[in-house]
Amino acid sequence: MESVRVGLIGWGTVGCGVIRVLEENASVIRARLGFPLELARVADLDLETPRPVPVAREKLTQNAREILEDPGIQIVVELIGGLEPARSFILEALERGKHVVTANKALLAHHGNELFEHAERHGGSIGFEASVAGGIPLLKSLREGLAGNKVDTIFGILNGTGNYILTRMTEEGLAFADALREAQEKGYAEADPTLDVDGIDTAHKLAIAGAMAFGTPIRFDQVYVEGIRQIDPLDVQFATEFGYQLKLLAIGRHVNGQLEMRVHPTLIPSSHVLASVRGAYNAVHLHGNAVGSIMLYGLGAGMMPTGSAVVADIMDIARDLASGVVNRVPPLSFLPENTQDIPIRPMEDVTTKYYFRFSAVDRPGVLSKISGILGENAISIAAVIQKGREVEGAVPIVMLTHEAQERAVRKSLEAIDRLDIVRGPTRIIRIEDSENSHVERE
Amino acid sequence: MESVRVGLIGWGTVGCGVIRVLEENASVIRARLGFPLELARVADLDLETPRPVPVAREKLTQNAREILEDPGIQIVVELIGGLEPARSFILEALERGKHVVTANKALLAHHGNELFEHAERHGGSIGFEASVAGGIPLLKSLREGLAGNKVDTIFGILNGTGNYILTRMTEEGLAFADALREAQEKGYAEADPTLDVDGIDTAHKLAIAGAMAFGTPIRFDQVYVEGIRQIDPLDVQFATEFGYQLKLLAIGRHVNGQLEMRVHPTLIPSSHVLASVRGAYNAVHLHGNAVGSIMLYGLGAGMMPTGSAVVADIMDIARDLASGVVNRVPPLSFLPENTQDIPIRPMEDVTTKYYFRFSAVDRPGVLSKISGILGENAISIAAVIQKGREVEGAVPIVMLTHEAQERAVRKSLEAIDRLDIVRGPTRIIRIEDSENSHVERE
Repeated sequence: MESVRVGLIGWGTVGCGVIRVLEENASVIRARLGFPLELARVADLDLETPRPVPVAREKLTQNAREILEDPGIQIVVELIGGLEPARSFILEALERGKHVVTANKALLAHHGNELFEHAERHGGSIGFEASVAGGIPLLKSLREGLAGNKVDTIFGILNGTGNYILTRMTEEGLAFADALREAQEKGYAEADPTLDVDGIDTAHKLAIAGAMAFGTPIRFDQVYVEGIRQIDPLDVQFATEFGYQLKLLAIGRHVNGQLEMRVHPTLIPSSHVLASVRGAYNAVHLHGNAVGSIMLYGLGAGMMPTGSAVVADIMDIARDLASGVVNRVPPLSFLPENTQDIPIRPMEDVTTKYYFRFSAVDRPGVLSKISGILGENAISIAAVIQKGREVEGAVPIVMLTHEAQERAVRKSLEAIDRLDIVRGPTRIIRIEDSENSHVERE
Repeated sequence: MESVRVGLIGWGTVGCGVIRVLEENASVIRARLGFPLELARVADLDLETPRPVPVAREKLTQNAREILEDPGIQIVVELIGGLEPARSFILEALERGKHVVTANKALLAHHGNELFEHAERHGGSIGFEASVAGGIPLLKSLREGLAGNKVDTIFGILNGTGNYILTRMTEEGLAFADALREAQEKGYAEADPTLDVDGIDTAHKLAIAGAMAFGTPIRFDQVYVEGIRQIDPLDVQFATEFGYQLKLLAIGRHVNGQLEMRVHPTLIPSSHVLASVRGAYNAVHLHGNAVGSIMLYGLGAGMMPTGSAVVADIMDIARDLASGVVNRVPPLSFLPENTQDIPIRPMEDVTTKYYFRFSAVDRPGVLSKISGILGENAISIAAVIQKGREVEGAVPIVMLTHEAQERAVRKSLEAIDRLDIVRGPTRIIRIEDSENSHVERE
């Protein structure tokens, strides 16, 4: 193999990272592959804004078609994000016999099944390591390194922006809005932070990684999603007193023939390995029936970590090209014909432990009324504390439950929030500390 | 591909793990590969001792040659450990056109270069994921997932036995001998614990992973090794007071054109992610110039985790067989012709921070004498505490230094230990908390 020629669509942050990795690490890349990767062409609508990583004028084009239609380009790297025209570019690249690498989790969450099928039909492959957990080689580990396992659990902090905000709320007692503003000032959060703070980005990633872990198609629309906008620093503080840390967690779990696929703020024991993952770092805890517990930790975003993952995919495809093979490993780890539509458990059927904070008037009999309603719904209480601080005529009563079903919880809280002794809606946060979710540090 | 036939030499703990993974997970393995793996034959000298995982009588043999000479077996899994006859079996398997999977780190540390060259010559491949960090997909990550990086640091807890002993010494104040006995009773340590507690097993693994990280041949005999037998619980306790945890660390680092390759007890800040790795777990921190800091964490030994890694390698080779390719990825990550003999820095030239514990008589002027000698050797002191407890006429003086060269430290301590005010040899433990060794949890 003389060289493999790469065309890059999208000269943004990640694009700059890819270009820098290809340039700065050209010698090790060649020493590993035995031939060089050649950046043939870079397309972006905006060629004027200065970038941290420059590109020679003659390689630049405003027209992505010049990459798609160039017969000399073997690998097209799509880094423009969003659904269109990214989807059409990828479909066309595959139709033209090219291979594709992308970091586009939104696109894969929505159209991954279609894209992979298209790739197979046209004898192409799609690398997407960068789409989940940035530089962490999570997807390769799921697809190959742990391929001999039945994976039953995937637990992850998959969004650095959300984790940064929660870390600041936990450690400095900041309110959500202040922590978000700080994250925006530092460049960790975008002007419109919706995808990150509403949990949607995490859900995109869980949909992709969960499909690979459990052997299903990608089913993003069935992932339950709740974000962190509603989190009150008061709850972060109470949780800490109970020995928990609050994280925005992606939870995928295979239980009794059903899958749980959910993203929501979650309390985990402070001794859990994921509890110590701070700031913009990501971490994923996997449990397989052979390997036991595994945790992978690293930077989940950023120019260079994401560039590292994209270049690893390019190298993987380049090795296939040099060996004359295609799709040696199925993109979603299971062969498409062997995936199963394992039913996803509706959120109302999920059973977990809960943290509640009631705002109730400070009067005898209040606790009895609340606990009476919980008892009627078969929810049993593990701990209660009542804190003296009265806010707007109410005091916070914090309660931890044993395992309870979401349906019963919702029904109870509806009744409790209608009580005249209760002021304002009850806050709930789900807790994960059961045996099978827990990797003690040992 | 109808099926791939596997012959297994060594029906011990890991062998049982491999067999169990192949049996229990046959369905997911087939769903991922598209064809089954068939355990054709199992060889072991001892066929009588009952095993946790039984094998059908007709598959068993006492004669490994029946596997080596069986033309129907494509992959030979060597799990007998030790140098011979493991080495000869692997060489012969390769000569007979078979592929090999092994978990044998001692063999690879000593003869890996020869084995890989032999494999290349005969068109075979050698999988050895299980040889370093057990179930953690570390080698695949180094070889593929992080292939676009210049890796400059590999820091790891690579021996579960040693880490278990140090964890017990730290948390319960046990003496080394008691912690070792406990580890032996629990089955974490062998009757002869030499390889584990003297750091040799860790050095085997560092020699292998370091070669892959830095692009050199395997050079085990150049790895500096110190074990944990000499560790006094007193030092563990003082270290904790200074905010450090004691770990047996494998350290590989590429600095200024030289490699540091060393294994020794090491103090790391309690806030370091590796500090929270307890008991029998392993963890590896890597730093690459693109990806930044990555940590991989999981069980580094045991029947099933090691079985998981061996089966991943079998599947990798099976995919190659199905695609008709060989050695698609070079075993040591760099192509053999592109490896470099990067010089290994002699231990005396290494610069790091130090913890010293002097045993000195409790008399004015002692500190001045000791610090005078250190000063003459350009070693500057960062902190000193003197603890009142007098033992056999001496008190412990604990000192932390700034960066100093090992040569100067050795020279100083030789002089200090000859002082008449000093009783007993000074204890030294190296400290790693410099910027480039440090992943703060953030």
